[in-house]
Amino acid sequence: MNLLLLEAADFVAADRVILTGRRLRHLQEVHRAEVGETLRVGLLGGEMGEGRLLRLDTASAELQVRFDQPPPAKLPVTLLLALPRPKMLRRVLQTVAAMGVPRLVLLNSYRVEKSFWQTPFLEPAAIREQLILGLEQARDTVLPEIIVEKRFKPFVEDRLPQLAADTLGLVGHPGDFPACPRAVQQPVTLAIGPEGGWIPYEVEKLAEAGLTPVQLGERILRVETAVSALLARLF
Amino acid sequence: MNLLLLEAADFVAADRVILTGRRLRHLQEVHRAEVGETLRVGLLGGEMGEGRLLRLDTASAELQVRFDQPPPAKLPVTLLLALPRPKMLRRVLQTVAAMGVPRLVLLNSYRVEKSFWQTPFLEPAAIREQLILGLEQARDTVLPEIIVEKRFKPFVEDRLPQLAADTLGLVGHPGDFPACPRAVQQPVTLAIGPEGGWIPYEVEKLAEAGLTPVQLGERILRVETAVSALLARLF
Repeated sequence: MNLLLLEAADFVAADRVILTGRRLRHLQEVHRAEVGETLRVGLLGGEMGEGRLLRLDTASAELQVRFDQPPPAKLPVTLLLALPRPKMLRRVLQTVAAMGVPRLVLLNSYRVEKSFWQTPFLEPAAIREQLILGLEQARDTVLPEIIVEKRFKPFVEDRLPQLAADTLGLVGHPGDFPACPRAVQQPVTLAIGPEGGWIPYEVEKLAEAGLTPVQLGERILRVETAVSALLARLF
Repeated sequence: MNLLLLEAADFVAADRVILTGRRLRHLQEVHRAEVGETLRVGLLGGEMGEGRLLRLDTASAELQVRFDQPPPAKLPVTLLLALPRPKMLRRVLQTVAAMGVPRLVLLNSYRVEKSFWQTPFLEPAAIREQLILGLEQARDTVLPEIIVEKRFKPFVEDRLPQLAADTLGLVGHPGDFPACPRAVQQPVTLAIGPEGGWIPYEVEKLAEAGLTPVQLGERILRVETAVSALLARLF
């Protein structure tokens, strides 16, 4: 946690917050914070600043806070991911939030196991928890928008063309395709497939919606690694 | 597992292997392989090719194999990492192997917790296990060399200048430094710090050994994410 993320419910006055639960434990056990210390804080969805620790005991922590700094810019990207397996999903959500992706679509694909859609990690509270961890890691305050799309075809036919309009549309796909471009100067819509890749029909449908296949070398990367590698290359 | 990695001990004839244990279970439970099927195989440290499944039962699997393809090229990089916390170490080892890093130095730093050096995940067999998982993921056969350096100063003073000679030496470090270069055309020596970063003394010593500080934006990334992002940007 490189940023203590605060929410409206934490405030007991305009410049005072009281923390309990996970953030309190983190202050005590990981940060080993002491009264008088100054910590980086951020207001969820708002500015960042500093908090001075006024009181810390086993029940709660109280901080005096001020905000004076905007959060870092997001990347100009909409990321489409074939729904990863539950364990990977949690890490990918953190990575996506940490790297500054403002919008993520979790999409079905032929090679997504049906059971993946049953995971409790897809519940809004569980998604939010991982995103918060990513924001705290990277020092950002703005939650990405997460869109969950259980049906590939209607999404790609009806919604994707509009989402991808006026962007550079790319599908990460192994094979004899151009290399993923570097340091692009425009917004991007990027689709990354499941383990085993998109099936040809899906690549075709994504292409019809404006997304061109690109490859990232002959090595097959885990989804989480592919996400960070592709974003770092693009921006 | 996108590649079935074979070792000398698996061979019962020049073109026959018998598998048990983890790889057998993977064939049965994840791959759900069937007799007659052809699978991608690789010889640890050697070539890649195909294996035809001759027999599969609860005790073992037998394959007929042939090798006709070199493994993918490695990246021209030596990676220095401040020793990550044990859980992260395991994932980083997989990522390093998957992305094609040929040489990794795990180094001490002021901000590496002393307890991290006690982890059983640093034992050679445990390191090897994670590297193999990374190679199987990415379809590579060649294990990276892992150098474990518990003392920062002697390594950086006595060994690093030689390791970094004739390479572009870089230290990932947040702050007012040039951005990490892109698409470099020469070998690189890249050092990535611990959670909380290198201390100024360490950055200074790394600079004396020929490594220049570069930054990767204002977001603070987990080590694993920073590794894949920096490598993707550099190569």
